[in-house]
Amino acid sequence: MAKKPLNVGLIGYGFMGRTHSNAYRKVNHFFDLEYQPVLKVICGLVDAEARAFAAKWGYESHATDWHAVIDRKDIDLVDICVPNNRHAEIAIAAAKAGKMILCEKPLALNAAQGRKMVEAVEKAGVPNLVSFNYRRVPAVTLAKNLIDEGRLGKIFHYRANFLQDWTISADVPQGGMATWRLDIKAAGSGVTGDLLAHCIDTALWQNGPITDVNALTETFIKERKNVETGKVEPVGIDDACTFFCRFKNGSIGNFESTRYARGHKALYTFEINGENASIRWDLHDLHRLQWFDHKDESKLRGWRSIHVTDAGGDHPYMNHWWVPGLQIGYAESFVHQLADFLGAVAAGKPPSPSFREALETQKVCDAVLKSGKSGRWVKV
Amino acid sequence: MAKKPLNVGLIGYGFMGRTHSNAYRKVNHFFDLEYQPVLKVICGLVDAEARAFAAKWGYESHATDWHAVIDRKDIDLVDICVPNNRHAEIAIAAAKAGKMILCEKPLALNAAQGRKMVEAVEKAGVPNLVSFNYRRVPAVTLAKNLIDEGRLGKIFHYRANFLQDWTISADVPQGGMATWRLDIKAAGSGVTGDLLAHCIDTALWQNGPITDVNALTETFIKERKNVETGKVEPVGIDDACTFFCRFKNGSIGNFESTRYARGHKALYTFEINGENASIRWDLHDLHRLQWFDHKDESKLRGWRSIHVTDAGGDHPYMNHWWVPGLQIGYAESFVHQLADFLGAVAAGKPPSPSFREALETQKVCDAVLKSGKSGRWVKV
Amino acid sequence: MAKKPLNVGLIGYGFMGRTHSNAYRKVNHFFDLEYQPVLKVICGLVDAEARAFAAKWGYESHATDWHAVIDRKDIDLVDICVPNNRHAEIAIAAAKAGKMILCEKPLALNAAQGRKMVEAVEKAGVPNLVSFNYRRVPAVTLAKNLIDEGRLGKIFHYRANFLQDWTISADVPQGGMATWRLDIKAAGSGVTGDLLAHCIDTALWQNGPITDVNALTETFIKERKNVETGKVEPVGIDDACTFFCRFKNGSIGNFESTRYARGHKALYTFEINGENASIRWDLHDLHRLQWFDHKDESKLRGWRSIHVTDAGGDHPYMNHWWVPGLQIGYAESFVHQLADFLGAVAAGKPPSPSFREALETQKVCDAVLKSGKSGRWVKV
Amino acid sequence: MAKKPLNVGLIGYGFMGRTHSNAYRKVNHFFDLEYQPVLKVICGLVDAEARAFAAKWGYESHATDWHAVIDRKDIDLVDICVPNNRHAEIAIAAAKAGKMILCEKPLALNAAQGRKMVEAVEKAGVPNLVSFNYRRVPAVTLAKNLIDEGRLGKIFHYRANFLQDWTISADVPQGGMATWRLDIKAAGSGVTGDLLAHCIDTALWQNGPITDVNALTETFIKERKNVETGKVEPVGIDDACTFFCRFKNGSIGNFESTRYARGHKALYTFEINGENASIRWDLHDLHRLQWFDHKDESKLRGWRSIHVTDAGGDHPYMNHWWVPGLQIGYAESFVHQLADFLGAVAAGKPPSPSFREALETQKVCDAVLKSGKSGRWVKV
Repeated sequence: MAKKPLNVGLIGYGFMGRTHSNAYRKVNHFFDLEYQPVLKVICGLVDAEARAFAAKWGYESHATDWHAVIDRKDIDLVDICVPNNRHAEIAIAAAKAGKMILCEKPLALNAAQGRKMVEAVEKAGVPNLVSFNYRRVPAVTLAKNLIDEGRLGKIFHYRANFLQDWTISADVPQGGMATWRLDIKAAGSGVTGDLLAHCIDTALWQNGPITDVNALTETFIKERKNVETGKVEPVGIDDACTFFCRFKNGSIGNFESTRYARGHKALYTFEINGENASIRWDLHDLHRLQWFDHKDESKLRGWRSIHVTDAGGDHPYMNHWWVPGLQIGYAESFVHQLADFLGAVAAGKPPSPSFREALETQKVCDAVLKSGKSGRWVKV
Repeated sequence: MAKKPLNVGLIGYGFMGRTHSNAYRKVNHFFDLEYQPVLKVICGLVDAEARAFAAKWGYESHATDWHAVIDRKDIDLVDICVPNNRHAEIAIAAAKAGKMILCEKPLALNAAQGRKMVEAVEKAGVPNLVSFNYRRVPAVTLAKNLIDEGRLGKIFHYRANFLQDWTISADVPQGGMATWRLDIKAAGSGVTGDLLAHCIDTALWQNGPITDVNALTETFIKERKNVETGKVEPVGIDDACTFFCRFKNGSIGNFESTRYARGHKALYTFEINGENASIRWDLHDLHRLQWFDHKDESKLRGWRSIHVTDAGGDHPYMNHWWVPGLQIGYAESFVHQLADFLGAVAAGKPPSPSFREALETQKVCDAVLKSGKSGRWVKV
Repeated sequence: MAKKPLNVGLIGYGFMGRTHSNAYRKVNHFFDLEYQPVLKVICGLVDAEARAFAAKWGYESHATDWHAVIDRKDIDLVDICVPNNRHAEIAIAAAKAGKMILCEKPLALNAAQGRKMVEAVEKAGVPNLVSFNYRRVPAVTLAKNLIDEGRLGKIFHYRANFLQDWTISADVPQGGMATWRLDIKAAGSGVTGDLLAHCIDTALWQNGPITDVNALTETFIKERKNVETGKVEPVGIDDACTFFCRFKNGSIGNFESTRYARGHKALYTFEINGENASIRWDLHDLHRLQWFDHKDESKLRGWRSIHVTDAGGDHPYMNHWWVPGLQIGYAESFVHQLADFLGAVAAGKPPSPSFREALETQKVCDAVLKSGKSGRWVKV
Repeated sequence: MAKKPLNVGLIGYGFMGRTHSNAYRKVNHFFDLEYQPVLKVICGLVDAEARAFAAKWGYESHATDWHAVIDRKDIDLVDICVPNNRHAEIAIAAAKAGKMILCEKPLALNAAQGRKMVEAVEKAGVPNLVSFNYRRVPAVTLAKNLIDEGRLGKIFHYRANFLQDWTISADVPQGGMATWRLDIKAAGSGVTGDLLAHCIDTALWQNGPITDVNALTETFIKERKNVETGKVEPVGIDDACTFFCRFKNGSIGNFESTRYARGHKALYTFEINGENASIRWDLHDLHRLQWFDHKDESKLRGWRSIHVTDAGGDHPYMNHWWVPGLQIGYAESFVHQLADFLGAVAAGKPPSPSFREALETQKVCDAVLKSGKSGRWVKV
């Protein structure tokens, strides 16, 4: 059966531009889909770099002005992989132009922006998705399935961390293409929008709404050189953020993120404690899920380390890959996300997480940042 | 060389009475000490049980009234292993009688009580120690030594959890000898005084004073049968407590404790992230210390799992036990504590952690509970 | 710079055909290479399946007779991914036709066949490589580098296992496209050629020649249905094989493989014990290397779990992928292998492991199987 | 109820003398037993050391000639903790004198000696036990129970290692009280009798008789100084030994032991692979058992890490210790052994493992050493 082409315009050739390009290239080798992405154009700030990226990944053309991408009639999908402060304008323009939209997380700089983006895509009626890719790590999807099956019973605790250590040195600058995540203007926040947004998205998906938060935010290094201005400037982002919260279902959450946890590179972990069972996962061994089931026979109870690689069985997504025991990596989560997105489009169903769902995460982020400043509980 | 006898009166024959008795019995088999504890009397509520305990552990006599223990001229050391609400009166009376005092944690029901206890022992000038035994797990002591050697550099984060799951069932009662820890009158608080007190003691010892705290406390099961009254009564304790805080040294703390974390029995964990190195430890594998050193050669950096059993080397306390590779258990931490206590007494030095040190932990607990009620930051 | 096309004819569209196709598709997205593989033709037994495979992976054409692939003048590289009993004839024909050759492991059914293959490729002077892909898992390459740097000192022990559990059921048949690995005629042996060949290749590469072996082989299930004949027939392969051996460098080896180790899917592990340091690795967490260095400070000695994902540092291959902390998977080892192969071809250097190197592994396999039958030590 | 005294004469005040003394001292604090060991006499070579040991552990007297111990009418139990070459004469004399006997492992220098010892104790009809203490680690006992319950189904593989690293330096001497284990005359063999004897005992107990063995033995350092003669002398022991074997039940065994595995101090591990389930254990985390059950629901299958500390449940021995989650250590295995021994004596049942059972282990050791020399399969 011939595939339907789906023409892609990708805006942003950084780290995320690469993960998305890899997914476009691979998805049809592993999934049977109605659509075949066609890489029409890559758009980025520096012409030579955009050209080189196009050559490397096989984009048919390149551009430096994102308006040109949106103006093209032959583009079906606009994929937004630029710093957070550009998401809103591009997404709203793309929606107006009737494009499908895939947008990197977090949705926006703040919920106010996010609301406008949601309005735009819903008014336009275009398929839209925010790239909270960790939902599509097979172990994480399996965790979600177990929760949905009711196996945990009443939930008491949700615990998530996202720990890194790459900004400990005062010599790391802010701003520019490599370090925009440290620049409050480009990023909107520090670890809250970059890392906790992932944790919050997963938590809302798995455990339902968060109603109230109470946060502590800290900026350990107060000034850094800005690579754009060349000057030492105050650091506006949160280097670290920890918050506790209440979920609507009565459970308690504890979240922490930092870029000052020596020894941890990308240690996203979550744990959920239910009446009957508990689940743990961490990104450093993303192919494993830890599972404790109180219904197991007493003397044999223990945390199971499930190697989520059962290619012939019922581990999510894994029947598309190799054979049992052989692990996949980080990048495959984007392939799964794309396969699900394309599948939803083909089926005429809304992809998930949509802009609207991502807005809920944004609201929690806003509340966390507000609480960090006020030192008080904040309602979401 | 003949040992000096040190006559012990132990009050309380529960779980802690057993761990302390075991330590008295064993300490001179493994440590060369000037003092030899002599088990003179065990005191407890039920005569038959006290008698049986005396027979089992070799106490020369038994009693049911603790005043009788303190009144005995031949008792050198009063060891308090009863519920928290009895600590103050016994300790103050023992101090007045000029006894050395070893008291189980937490020091008291609250800091107000604690202050009186500190006054009493300091006025009496008697050696005193509160049994925060986890300081004496060799891996924990090693962690402290590494910090004191300055190996971690500036500290950014302190993270500690104490997770249990034994009160999830609504059928667990409150009150009585087996479940006094759920009775607000006997325990003073729930997980805060029972479990977080350990975490806080270790944290203050390793990382210095905590200045401000912000807490969330929760009681999941609102009513339980009281085994003393036979009636279903409101539960006054905190089932779960999580707080973040600021340390005087500029680092941030995140603490959580609960008795509703399915799958964890006594999972006390801590992690410290410094500029140069990080440390992790957990009670479920208490003989191991996790160590990450950024000064290691780049391509060989990784978390080391140090099996703290080097009997012939420089692992704390381990030269007193077996041969390398052979682990000791939980109970040995009490043996170490006693050896250190007796060594300090022999040397005329104050044992540690003293009542005064334990009062600092009590103040943090009080602040945490206050914050849990008010929903606001509280200064310690 | 424009890439030079390198035209590929792939023979075999099974599991390995997929891993190789994935590598051809991806390699230039992640590595800067002079050559660009062009997928000219896929060849396999069943026309419809070959056609579908071509469509899925983007091969320009398909075929069912491998001779047709070799006869094509426009094919530069013949890639052999068929059962072991077909390697020799195809490889020899390809060599005669002057094609570069990439051949799946093991090299051949036995060393006698292997010698002819070596002669053929060396006479033809064509680049040749046998796909012992695990050499290119970054953690395994790192281990090799550490050994080559002399960090382990004198080696005492080499220990390797490859444990699976997929043939425990007597209902698993032999023969056919899915289960040819259980058919002695197609596979030549059981776990020895399939799994131990990997272990032996890595061992020879890391630790030098094996001089003598002593083996035990076992076939637990004596008869299985043959899906080609439809009859129950004797099983000719080794279900399990364990052997010990002597290496030329004076160290001792212990190897074991089985498909009857319940709970292990693809647990390839190795451990090397040297005078100064030891190394461990396992395929179920392939992104980690375990390292123990006796030169570490005494009290801090411990096994390091190195997360081999330092994208900005000196972990082999990892600078081609994502950011620190984000793991890659099994399939990437084939991408690395291909990048190295193409790099060697471009540089005019012989790729490794060559047919000649793979012949050494074959000789050890032959000796192991011979010893398994005779019950005696066999010289390699 | 008053305890019956059981008068103990301990011969040997080395490492094992300490572990046994600790058990005698503790056993009645944790187990309700009819007998109470009374420490009557410690016997050892050096008078001052025996005297000091008696003082430290509370023996009523000390001696330097073991005959004096056996001649004493008031001694009920002779406990043999001396080098292997003295076991036979002491045990046979003790049996003739009608003493109960507890003997350290291995039973003897060889099976010929062992047979005489078995004859002596059986003729005398005295309770006898060989101290294969690892059987009484709760996790190991639990493993045995699971096997006996038939949960594993048909067994395919048994795998055990005992890895140490304490003799890598050529400066470690042989002979004398501290290093008699390196002296062939005192020890009879190297790792085979010292370490593999433990592995073999557990294996026979769990998996039944071994019928045939094939071994490789190696002595890496050929000469060491003898501390008794002061001369450099050839080393007669096996530094390393690996063997494979066949069990009567059709399964295959693979065993390895060495004192040259850098990074491992006392890493005794075993793994058993059955049709339905597998078990793993290692001495470095002795309080955990790894369990994989194929009968678990497919998507939730994984290795369970069972923390064998359920004090309120059905984990072997653990109801005698603390509360769930709190681990015990190595030394407690001797307490359990003693409790079982005293319980058996009280019940008039034969303790286990008896001399006769230990003889079976000795036969396997003899066969292994013989095979190591001949390079051939040897029947046990």
